[in-house]
Amino acid sequence: MKRKAYLKKTSLKRAQEILLKKFGNYKLQTENIKTEQAQGRVTAEAVYAQRSAPDYYASAMDGIAVKAFSTNYASEREPVILTKGQDFVYVDTGDLVPEPFNAVIKIEDVEKLEDKRVEIIQSVPVWNHIRSIGESVIKQQMIIPSHTEVNVFEIGSMLEAGVTELEVFKKPELSIIPTGSELVKPDEKKEKGQLVDFNSTMLKLTAQNWGLSVNDFAIVKDNYEEIKSNILKAVDSSDIIIVNAGSSAGREDYTLDILQSLGEVYVHGVDVMPGKPLIIAKVKGKAVFGIPGYPLSALLDLHLFVKPLVKNILGLKYVLPNKLRAKVKKKVPSTAGLKEFIRVNLAEIEGELLALPQKRGSASMHSLVNADGILPIPESKEGILAEEEVDVYLLKSKEVIKNNLMMIGSHDLTIDIIRDLIRKNKYDFALNIQSVGSLSGLVSLKRGESHLAGAHLLDSESGEYNTSYIKDLLQEEIAVINLVQREQGLMVKKGNPKGIKDIKDLTNDNLKFINRQRGSGTRVLLDYLLKNENIDKNKIKGYDKEELTHMGVAVQVAEGNADTALGIKAAAAAVGIDFVPIKEEKYDIILKKSELNDDRIDKIIKIIKSDQFKEKVKMLGGYNTKESGNIHFIE
Amino acid sequence: MKRKAYLKKTSLKRAQEILLKKFGNYKLQTENIKTEQAQGRVTAEAVYAQRSAPDYYASAMDGIAVKAFSTNYASEREPVILTKGQDFVYVDTGDLVPEPFNAVIKIEDVEKLEDKRVEIIQSVPVWNHIRSIGESVIKQQMIIPSHTEVNVFEIGSMLEAGVTELEVFKKPELSIIPTGSELVKPDEKKEKGQLVDFNSTMLKLTAQNWGLSVNDFAIVKDNYEEIKSNILKAVDSSDIIIVNAGSSAGREDYTLDILQSLGEVYVHGVDVMPGKPLIIAKVKGKAVFGIPGYPLSALLDLHLFVKPLVKNILGLKYVLPNKLRAKVKKKVPSTAGLKEFIRVNLAEIEGELLALPQKRGSASMHSLVNADGILPIPESKEGILAEEEVDVYLLKSKEVIKNNLMMIGSHDLTIDIIRDLIRKNKYDFALNIQSVGSLSGLVSLKRGESHLAGAHLLDSESGEYNTSYIKDLLQEEIAVINLVQREQGLMVKKGNPKGIKDIKDLTNDNLKFINRQRGSGTRVLLDYLLKNENIDKNKIKGYDKEELTHMGVAVQVAEGNADTALGIKAAAAAVGIDFVPIKEEKYDIILKKSELNDDRIDKIIKIIKSDQFKEKVKMLGGYNTKESGNIHFIE
Repeated sequence: MKRKAYLKKTSLKRAQEILLKKFGNYKLQTENIKTEQAQGRVTAEAVYAQRSAPDYYASAMDGIAVKAFSTNYASEREPVILTKGQDFVYVDTGDLVPEPFNAVIKIEDVEKLEDKRVEIIQSVPVWNHIRSIGESVIKQQMIIPSHTEVNVFEIGSMLEAGVTELEVFKKPELSIIPTGSELVKPDEKKEKGQLVDFNSTMLKLTAQNWGLSVNDFAIVKDNYEEIKSNILKAVDSSDIIIVNAGSSAGREDYTLDILQSLGEVYVHGVDVMPGKPLIIAKVKGKAVFGIPGYPLSALLDLHLFVKPLVKNILGLKYVLPNKLRAKVKKKVPSTAGLKEFIRVNLAEIEGELLALPQKRGSASMHSLVNADGILPIPESKEGILAEEEVDVYLLKSKEVIKNNLMMIGSHDLTIDIIRDLIRKNKYDFALNIQSVGSLSGLVSLKRGESHLAGAHLLDSESGEYNTSYIKDLLQEEIAVINLVQREQGLMVKKGNPKGIKDIKDLTNDNLKFINRQRGSGTRVLLDYLLKNENIDKNKIKGYDKEELTHMGVAVQVAEGNADTALGIKAAAAAVGIDFVPIKEEKYDIILKKSELNDDRIDKIIKIIKSDQFKEKVKMLGGYNTKESGNIHFIE
Repeated sequence: MKRKAYLKKTSLKRAQEILLKKFGNYKLQTENIKTEQAQGRVTAEAVYAQRSAPDYYASAMDGIAVKAFSTNYASEREPVILTKGQDFVYVDTGDLVPEPFNAVIKIEDVEKLEDKRVEIIQSVPVWNHIRSIGESVIKQQMIIPSHTEVNVFEIGSMLEAGVTELEVFKKPELSIIPTGSELVKPDEKKEKGQLVDFNSTMLKLTAQNWGLSVNDFAIVKDNYEEIKSNILKAVDSSDIIIVNAGSSAGREDYTLDILQSLGEVYVHGVDVMPGKPLIIAKVKGKAVFGIPGYPLSALLDLHLFVKPLVKNILGLKYVLPNKLRAKVKKKVPSTAGLKEFIRVNLAEIEGELLALPQKRGSASMHSLVNADGILPIPESKEGILAEEEVDVYLLKSKEVIKNNLMMIGSHDLTIDIIRDLIRKNKYDFALNIQSVGSLSGLVSLKRGESHLAGAHLLDSESGEYNTSYIKDLLQEEIAVINLVQREQGLMVKKGNPKGIKDIKDLTNDNLKFINRQRGSGTRVLLDYLLKNENIDKNKIKGYDKEELTHMGVAVQVAEGNADTALGIKAAAAAVGIDFVPIKEEKYDIILKKSELNDDRIDKIIKIIKSDQFKEKVKMLGGYNTKESGNIHFIE
């Protein structure tokens, strides 16, 4: 068995420099294409006008063409009368102004007398409202230089100037070779332990958006010879090759060895996170990239390396996304010497634009869908300090971000319904959520990191929900909006084979339990129930095994890894297992009372009170909406 | 003959409101499509995860899977030795961690002893480096809400979650009906007085970029019945209809009458420039737009009306382009009550970002290719004051604009060669040019509106070029770079049928001359030559007829509208007429001496001195490059 370390580690900047130095002079072929089909293509040569536009004296207005001198001395008191055919002709915008006419009068300034005569009350100079020849473009004038991306305006301008075809660079050919014995295609049936190859689709679409032509290979098993022969095939037929994944140091990561045997490896391992296990190599003059398998790592390497290379060989500028300046409330640690890119949500809270880091992890594809921006932490820093201002690259438009409403707290499936109804009602804001425990949500609200918190925290003294926690944590006027009440209970296998009836059964010898993490409302509830019944938690097998979500424990029960777990009915229903109700709990949305003035909060309350919301909640099962939308205050 | 005024004039804001009020509830049909083909489409319903990802305990690292308790107390002094199969198994990133193992140790932290044994020196907690079930996405979790545009991340996230198809809105169908008896298709032969219909192509491509499906009709003649039947056909087969042009008040503008007869007209005439003659009507429930024929008017109306309507019915946000704050040096007049959009160049000059308005005119398609931004002047204002700060919508990226080098002055064909060579050399800036006369160029330089001026101004006293003008106008240290010397002479018809030999022939009775505008270098030269030869300009037929460019006069001679004109040889060559040389003149690039420190100026001088430049100049004909790139200073 072979194990390898990185050949050498290279800084991001240095790796990009090496790349452009080694491949910057790569020559693409050119081809002649129709102007109308040139959108997104890049000119190989400057394009020159083949005719002037206009190429005749054209009327710039709807009106009459006249001889300018014949209008001399016209005034309101002494109008000049002109006769059709002799003194004027009617012209519309764009019409040729025939000789000997040399001025145009707007139709609004012409008074019609009878069939063939008109009256005007103002004189006009020569060339009045006549477009000169070449006003827009002159024959032989350069329309666009070489190495220019052709878009709508360029196409219009070329067609106007009689250019119906042009010489462009052929689209750079990119081969994507997905490798991994564990991979299946998105539409294939997936066994446990197999992974869906969705990277290939994302890489392909991204590259196509950059103007590349993509050749997507079938999935290649982790087999040295098979990978090698596919790389050789790709090198012969394309300009750039991506091998995904196998660039790291796993047992079946053959890419490095293969590329070393076929050509020259310039970089293996870049000080960037995610995306570290990158390989840059040259085989038969072509750039070959080995990129890692985690989707965020693969995408980042594509943006950091393949994009600048493509722009460079096309001679286009590599433009970074728009940036915004935002403040980070809480310290974000990072390793010095490593350039890290962190997904953040962005929201304007109390007059400040805040960047709110998401949980890290380059495998969390879905988090990228919810992210508003990417926060780069320079190599030179050991992270970002609390209250520090930073630049954030935007994934969404400024105008969208400005209206973001931020919620941090416990997740509930009915939040998704609100988010969807905001869109369906065409409201002009988005509700973004970061899922953490109920308690962490309240802490974030206190820290000013969110507009809203979501919590279902039972006070084991009073039996009440949330109030005592809010009083303890938040020393200001607070509004509490009830979202839903929901049934907590014991999730059990289909048919409840072990006959679980209530919380006392958890200590049964033949039961395996699975728990939620500390700080979660469900964990608080469990401990309250155990205390009430005087049950020793040490007697529950699996009490120490934690999952982070309702669905996490539900899946464990469904898969047979546990017999039971405490959680909500909707999660049990979602995975098709049974449910023994134990207690109804309140899930509240908590905010500073002053935020109630916000029009967006009004709209959310309106949604929560709507029949549409309540019907959709009912369909999930295990919810009660009788108090949904009710507000009370805590001072 | 029928003449009409606008039905009523509506403000931009009001017209947009009417549009959304009348059509905002338009219902699009939906369809089920493959996730992999969903890029750019808009969800009709929220999309939920069909499985968790990962849906098994997956190793997050390349390494070994162990039972966490078996690593307890491991230390450098007392390593723990593990046996393969019994105490550990090898796992790569993404592999299933098999029972009973519950932690993963990175391969870098594993010391291999012999074939089946490894040594570790640090204990690991339970679940170390194991991805929890649903870490990325949990079954039944909402991936994206309805009314959401699907892009690469969304597609990746859906495929990861087992969503291989989804419900999206059908692409809104847009019909574009080009009308006009004078129109020909871009690839057809064009007669004088005919216009190429390139609007249809631009409108189509733009609409497709916004996610519309476009149905482009053949050109319809200006005929009431034909236009009517095409509108009816379009209304039956599409969601939105554009009739281009015929929305104004010309003799053959039938659109208004037809739409009034078929349905309801809400708007005719909007207080916006360009784009004023807009019609908004409803026919059989569909939005029908009549838009004007000038390309910039048509494009602006598309952006101001069709785009917000489409975004609205799809439930997406209508996002305006990025803006930048810039200063205007010179007053820009405008009419109160009219919202005007003016094309500008943008450049950073002496530490300030300046917006430099281009010549107006909604027919000048090519100017849009060279524009960097659009400056909106609000209805409430009578223009922009000198030194006022304004917002400019960007047509190019900030990073491109930041590096713009601005040249204002006389145009010469060799400037295009420099612009092209900047791109070919992959230099990181663009040279933008606004063509005005030589004198105006020097005035702009003085006003601080440009980095460079281009001039060929003869001092009729000294016979020298440019120097005295610079000394008179610019009271600071100036650098003068010679671009080229070029032959000025008399352009004559092919074969020189009238036997023109020199400037004295211009007074011949049988000759028609055409002149250049006052302030142009060529006009200065002509007057100098006439004075030298004691020729009375009043004896030259056509002395008062002015064209703005070398090519303008060349075309007049080629077309037979004049017998001769003074101009450069390259222009004569471009239109295939003959040339009688009169005098070699200097064309210089003029800049403030302090700007010579600018790296971009260095690069331009390098280009001017290069063989590549000189060869290309030679091919134009009539140029001499023996002093090209030479610099002298004027203090």
